[in-house]
Amino acid sequence: MAEKGAFFSIAISKPIKCRAAIAREAGKPLVIEEVIVAPPKAHEVRIKIICTSLCFSDVTFWRMKVPPACFPRIFGHEAVGVVESVGEDVHDLAAGDMVIPIFMPDCQECIDCKSWKSNLCSKFPFEISPTMLRDGTSRFTDMNGEIINHFLWISSFSEYTVVDVASVTKIDPNTIPPNRACLLSCGVSTGVGAAMRTASVEAGSSVVIFGLGSIGLAVAEGARLCGATRIIGVDINPNKFEIAKKFGVTEFVNSKSCVDRSVSQVILDMTEGGADYCFECVGMASLVQEAYACCRKGWGKTILQGVDRPDAELNFNSFEVLLSGKTLMGSVYGGLKPKLDIPILIKRYMDKELELDKFVTHEVCFEDINKAFDLLLAGESLRCVIWMDKTSK
Amino acid sequence: MAEKGAFFSIAISKPIKCRAAIAREAGKPLVIEEVIVAPPKAHEVRIKIICTSLCFSDVTFWRMKVPPACFPRIFGHEAVGVVESVGEDVHDLAAGDMVIPIFMPDCQECIDCKSWKSNLCSKFPFEISPTMLRDGTSRFTDMNGEIINHFLWISSFSEYTVVDVASVTKIDPNTIPPNRACLLSCGVSTGVGAAMRTASVEAGSSVVIFGLGSIGLAVAEGARLCGATRIIGVDINPNKFEIAKKFGVTEFVNSKSCVDRSVSQVILDMTEGGADYCFECVGMASLVQEAYACCRKGWGKTILQGVDRPDAELNFNSFEVLLSGKTLMGSVYGGLKPKLDIPILIKRYMDKELELDKFVTHEVCFEDINKAFDLLLAGESLRCVIWMDKTSK
Repeated sequence: MAEKGAFFSIAISKPIKCRAAIAREAGKPLVIEEVIVAPPKAHEVRIKIICTSLCFSDVTFWRMKVPPACFPRIFGHEAVGVVESVGEDVHDLAAGDMVIPIFMPDCQECIDCKSWKSNLCSKFPFEISPTMLRDGTSRFTDMNGEIINHFLWISSFSEYTVVDVASVTKIDPNTIPPNRACLLSCGVSTGVGAAMRTASVEAGSSVVIFGLGSIGLAVAEGARLCGATRIIGVDINPNKFEIAKKFGVTEFVNSKSCVDRSVSQVILDMTEGGADYCFECVGMASLVQEAYACCRKGWGKTILQGVDRPDAELNFNSFEVLLSGKTLMGSVYGGLKPKLDIPILIKRYMDKELELDKFVTHEVCFEDINKAFDLLLAGESLRCVIWMDKTSK
Repeated sequence: MAEKGAFFSIAISKPIKCRAAIAREAGKPLVIEEVIVAPPKAHEVRIKIICTSLCFSDVTFWRMKVPPACFPRIFGHEAVGVVESVGEDVHDLAAGDMVIPIFMPDCQECIDCKSWKSNLCSKFPFEISPTMLRDGTSRFTDMNGEIINHFLWISSFSEYTVVDVASVTKIDPNTIPPNRACLLSCGVSTGVGAAMRTASVEAGSSVVIFGLGSIGLAVAEGARLCGATRIIGVDINPNKFEIAKKFGVTEFVNSKSCVDRSVSQVILDMTEGGADYCFECVGMASLVQEAYACCRKGWGKTILQGVDRPDAELNFNSFEVLLSGKTLMGSVYGGLKPKLDIPILIKRYMDKELELDKFVTHEVCFEDINKAFDLLLAGESLRCVIWMDKTSK
């Protein structure tokens, strides 16, 4: 195992033996084992993870029994850590740098990364890959020599991981604490970005959010920051309203109690003709259609956030799309460009505008990582931070 | 019949006998008959039509055998004329004013008409109505006393017609000639507006237009005015490319010759990853999906312009919408606000930027109105202007 506190002195080219939480079978508890983490290759850095948090995408692919699921695999993609060593051709990062790994590559060279309009890197298109970004191989092997798969190019449920420089954003260690920084890797940024960047929510506007999980609440947080005056939460669980109020949600619709009228009819009445922005954060094609239906004609925007089955279809009436003047949009990572936007989110956190604390409902040590899964599956946690080193917690 | 040249002296309250081209049966030639045009009621003006042009929407509803089609009806909704008399509560218009009637009401009072974001009047939502806008009755009767239906609140295939003030835009008679002004009532504005207002086409961008009819060519004209550098026209008729070049179309794809690869694959190759803006101007749901597919990931916009069957469905893969970062939009009348935007289009015409002349391929007198139908159905005309008074032509 890597000697604690001495990681800067480790020779660049040597493999590291450390602990990782391995998912060996779909839906079965992770097993903390020793693994060998290979040195970073060209354009890669090896990171010592400080803390990581559990996102629902980890759970989705951990439960999945068919491809693109694959096992054994090291999950985890929300994290913060310190660069331990760098591979060849790494110029902007050095050992000791505090970094946030982010599943959306930002190569900074392609037409998309250079454009302010897109966050979908053309050089490294997003995919659910089981390997490293550039060479399609793994940096993890277990003690029997078996190759362990990566997840989302991050795999942060390991004391050390190797990540491509395109997926790493450097941050100032004197700003945000690690157990807040890790949230910016995925869920919170996705929701906040969807409101601020993809939808560009205007001050004084009305917003409807389908699904009050972490992403939905992050959308509420973003809409609140944008100055939305009405933020209507829709969920099947009325208990979520109390929590949601902390995130700026002003009204609640229990979709289960909409019997005589559809949710969209209820919302059309509440908003006198429709909301300015509707976000689908559940991942059900039928809810996207409901969201579209309760958008304001003339200028309403519907934003897809939830991930449905890969073959799920969205059906819209052609006439309605033509005549309603509404807009349908999708975005990944809230339309944020990691290397440009993470510093902005950190500044808003430091300015006490973006409130990250309320997302962290639980913190556990690495040994208890399966508790994080239990809490999320029981609907008890928003974000559970997992500390890799007990003494840091 | 109204005495020519003396219409200003006609008493406000009296019905006018004049000639109108009546569609008595679906798809059968119009019949020029005498009709009685009732005086304008409150918030209405009676207009002496100077000239009118034939739009494909007239043809669509003229050929239609089932509701919302209805007969007898006076078609026509692209026109220019002079106010002959005004009803009660009309304050901004007076006899002698030159006006363009427009099928999109602009009440200037509701939240939509007051907002710069919408052109979909809430007080008078757009519909294919057979009557006047406010009271649901007709102002036309034939010489047997039978009520004649209105079309799109305009019915300009009559020497005189009654239109609600919400559907009338006053223009300066010293600017644009009548046989150019009438084009702004519908088709040309719809296409030009879709590029300029709905899509906000950026200078230097790439545009794909499915369907090189009048609307598609008007989109090209709008895209050209916005500074698009590549305007790719898609049509089944290769002869249209020569005409389309005059409207700014730079490249052509014959969709009939796309055998091994779909149109979207061809366009993705031509544009190295997709066009910035794709406009569907045919009215086929499947083409909307093709247009969406050949839009640039990250920022591409697909704009619906064509009118398909009312029950036509658009199907999109949920994952693609989520992950592609593309936008789907619809708009009516190109997103233009009649009373604000018509003067802008006229100014651009006067400044020799917006080229209207090339849209007018034919001009006929009122007696020959059926020729305008024949020409459009044969694909020979873009816009055929119909002069109500032979001596004006």
